[in-house]
Amino acid sequence: MALLVQKFGGSSVADADRIRRCAQRAYDARRAGHDVVVVVSAMGKTTDRLIELAGEVAASPPKREMDQLMAAGEQVSIALTAMALSSLGQPAVSLTGAQARILTEPAHTRARIRTIDTSRVRQHLAQGRVVVVAGFQGVTDEGETTTLGRGGSDTTAVALAAALRADECEIYTDVDGVYTADPRVVPSARKLARISYEEILELASLGAKVMASRSIFFGAKYNIPIHVRHAMLPDPGTMIVSETKEMEQEEVTGVALKTNLGRVTLTGLPTAPGIQARIFAAIADAQVLVDDIIQNEVSPETTSVSFTVDHADLADIKPVLDRILSDSGPVRGAGSWGAVRVDVGLCKVSAVGVGMRSHTGVAAKMFRALAEAGVRIQNITTSEIRISCILAKEDGEKAMRAVHGAFGLEVPARG
Amino acid sequence: MALLVQKFGGSSVADADRIRRCAQRAYDARRAGHDVVVVVSAMGKTTDRLIELAGEVAASPPKREMDQLMAAGEQVSIALTAMALSSLGQPAVSLTGAQARILTEPAHTRARIRTIDTSRVRQHLAQGRVVVVAGFQGVTDEGETTTLGRGGSDTTAVALAAALRADECEIYTDVDGVYTADPRVVPSARKLARISYEEILELASLGAKVMASRSIFFGAKYNIPIHVRHAMLPDPGTMIVSETKEMEQEEVTGVALKTNLGRVTLTGLPTAPGIQARIFAAIADAQVLVDDIIQNEVSPETTSVSFTVDHADLADIKPVLDRILSDSGPVRGAGSWGAVRVDVGLCKVSAVGVGMRSHTGVAAKMFRALAEAGVRIQNITTSEIRISCILAKEDGEKAMRAVHGAFGLEVPARG
Repeated sequence: MALLVQKFGGSSVADADRIRRCAQRAYDARRAGHDVVVVVSAMGKTTDRLIELAGEVAASPPKREMDQLMAAGEQVSIALTAMALSSLGQPAVSLTGAQARILTEPAHTRARIRTIDTSRVRQHLAQGRVVVVAGFQGVTDEGETTTLGRGGSDTTAVALAAALRADECEIYTDVDGVYTADPRVVPSARKLARISYEEILELASLGAKVMASRSIFFGAKYNIPIHVRHAMLPDPGTMIVSETKEMEQEEVTGVALKTNLGRVTLTGLPTAPGIQARIFAAIADAQVLVDDIIQNEVSPETTSVSFTVDHADLADIKPVLDRILSDSGPVRGAGSWGAVRVDVGLCKVSAVGVGMRSHTGVAAKMFRALAEAGVRIQNITTSEIRISCILAKEDGEKAMRAVHGAFGLEVPARG
Repeated sequence: MALLVQKFGGSSVADADRIRRCAQRAYDARRAGHDVVVVVSAMGKTTDRLIELAGEVAASPPKREMDQLMAAGEQVSIALTAMALSSLGQPAVSLTGAQARILTEPAHTRARIRTIDTSRVRQHLAQGRVVVVAGFQGVTDEGETTTLGRGGSDTTAVALAAALRADECEIYTDVDGVYTADPRVVPSARKLARISYEEILELASLGAKVMASRSIFFGAKYNIPIHVRHAMLPDPGTMIVSETKEMEQEEVTGVALKTNLGRVTLTGLPTAPGIQARIFAAIADAQVLVDDIIQNEVSPETTSVSFTVDHADLADIKPVLDRILSDSGPVRGAGSWGAVRVDVGLCKVSAVGVGMRSHTGVAAKMFRALAEAGVRIQNITTSEIRISCILAKEDGEKAMRAVHGAFGLEVPARG
C-alpha cells in the first residue's frame, strides 16, 4: 500500500463529466489499496474569468484581494471532486489551502510555501477518506489567503507529496508524458519512460511546457518521483526521478525549442567592473526576465554584452538601456558610452542530457548537424548538461529536427 | 460618527457595474465620517449555478461539501467589492466568514451563529478600512466551512451589527421599503417609515417577502435598528425598530397575503391525549413546515384537526397521515380512526398591528370588510397582533384590498 498524491489540472476538471472521470481515477487508486490525496486546480477557464471580473471593477486591484478572489476557483473544484467521490461510494473530504494548513509567506499572488502541517490530512487519510486539497493556494500565519503564482497547483501537489513523504506524485494533464522533442515539430519524437529532475528543469526553462519549475525543484529536493501522465488515458506517462547510471549512457535526452526571442546587444561598454551589474539591475527593476547573457571582450578598453529576452519585453527595455548608457559619462573624450542594438525574430534550440557530463564531442555533433542543415548559428551558450544555439526564427524547426535526428532520439533507447 | 453595517443582496451585486454602485454607497457613508462594515451575498444567480453543478456530479452531495462549494460564491463578491472600494481610493479589506471569525454550530447548510469574535474586524476599522464580510457563511471551531441557510446574508449582517454594537444595520435590496401591503396587489399601498420587529416578523411569516425572520429575531434581541432600503435609489426606506407608543395608535400596520396554501383536515380523531403529537411529529419527520393548526372538538368522543401547508408539500403528507390513522387501531367497533380530507387552492389574508393589543373591534372590522366584499371565510386564526382568514385562492387579492381599505392604510398616518 502506497501513499499517492494525484494532481488534476484545470482542463482535466473543466466540467462535471471530467470531474467525475478524475474522481474515478482517485477511486481506482483507493480501491487498489493506496492512500490517496487529490490536488485540483480551478475548473477550465475559471481563473481567467475571475481575473476579467476583477478588471471590470478596478483598474489595479490590490493583490490581497486578487488572491481572495482567485482562491474561490479551487474551492469550487475541490468541493465538486469530493462530491463526485462520495457518489462513487468513496468517503472524501475537501480542504482549502487554509484548511490543509499550507502555510506560506505573506507575498500575495506569488507566495512561497513555508511549511505544511499535515496532521489534518493524515487524520482524514487514517479514517479511510480521499482528501481533496485546493491547489495554487495557501494561507499566512495571520489567516490571509495567498496564491502561489504560475504553476501553483503543481507546486501544491509536489510540496504535499514531500510533506507527506508520499511514494509518488502523479501529475495528470492533457499530454501523455515528456517527449524527446515537441511531437508537433518533430513527428518522430518519442515519449520518455524516465527523465531526471535536472534534465526536465533545463527543458522546462527552454520552452518545453511540461511542468512549472518550482514544483520540480521541490520534487528534486525531497526526491519525490513525479509521474506526468494523461488525465483521460490509461497508459503510464513519464517518471521524473533522480539521475540514474543508465541515463548517463545517452548523450542527449531531449531537444527543446524556445521561440519569440529578441536579443539586445550593447557594444562599446567600458571594461571596468560594474557596468553589467548596473544594466541587469535596471532590467530586473523593469520586471523583465532575461534569458541568456553572453559577453565578448572586444578590446582592452571596450566590451560587448548580448542578452536574449522574450520578444514582448523588448519595448520595455530599450528606454531603460538608453538612459543607463547616457548616464555613464563620456568615453574617449566625446559622446557617451556604447550603443544599443536590438534584434528581433530569433529562437533558441537546445539539446539537454545528463550524459553530456561523461561524453565528449556532443557539442561538435550538434554544430555539425546544424551546419549540414544549412543553419547559421548566431550565439552559443552552454551549461553542464545543455548546449543552446540562438538562430533566426525561421530556422528553428528545421534545426530541431536535425539535432533530434543527429542524436538518434527517435530510436527507443532507455527503458 | 456612527458604526454602520450595510448589507447588499445577490441582485445588488449581480455584475461589475452594480458592485461598483454598492461600493459607492459604502464609500459615501465612509466619507460622511462613519465606520462601515459591508456584508455581501453571492453575485446574482451564482449560488443557483453552483447547486446545479453539484447536481451534475453527485445525486446527493454531502452537506459539508455543499457548504464548501457555496461559500466560494460570496468569496468572489467580497473580493470584487473590496477591489471596487480600493479603486475609489478607499482602503478596504475582504474577509470570509472564517476570517471574520463568525463561529457557528457544526450543522452544515443550516448552521446557527454561536458567537462572533470581532477583534479582527475592529482592528481593520480602526485603521480606517471598510471591512467587506462574506454573508451566509461561517466556520466551526474545527475550521469547517458552514452556511447559514435561507436568508443567511441578512443574518450575518444583523448578527455582525449586534456583535459590533453598530448604530444601524442597512439592508439594501430591490424593494424600497416595507409597505402596508404588496403594491402589486394593492396599488394604494403605502411605504411605512417605521415598523416594529414583532410586526415585521408576523408579516414575514405571512408571506410578505421582506427579510428572513432569523435576522429580525437577532435585531429584536439586541435592539439593532434595521433599515430596509433600495440599493439603487437614494431615498430612505423603512426602519425596523422596537415598538413605540405611536405605533399603538394604529389598529393595523399592514396586510399580507400568503398564496399556494393547501389544507389537510383529519376528522373522527379520538379525543384522548396523544394523537396530535403523533400526527405532527410524523409531519416534522417528513421535513414539512406546517403553517396554521386549527382544532375543533366535534363531540365528546371525536375531534377534528385542520392544518395548512404549502401546496407543494401535500403530496408528501398524505401517505404519512394515512399510515398513522390506520396504525391507530379500531374506532367504535369497526374500521380505523378518522378520515383525511385534502383541500387545495387556498390562501390566507392577515392583518397585523401592535395596536390590536389596545384597540377593540379590530377582528369585527376585518370580518365586516370581507363580508361586504362577498368573501367567504373558511377558517380563522389569530395571535396577539394578528388576525388571519383562510379563503379560496381566487378571493385573496380582492380580500386584501378590502381589508387594506377598511383600516385606512392608504392614508399617510405615522411619520
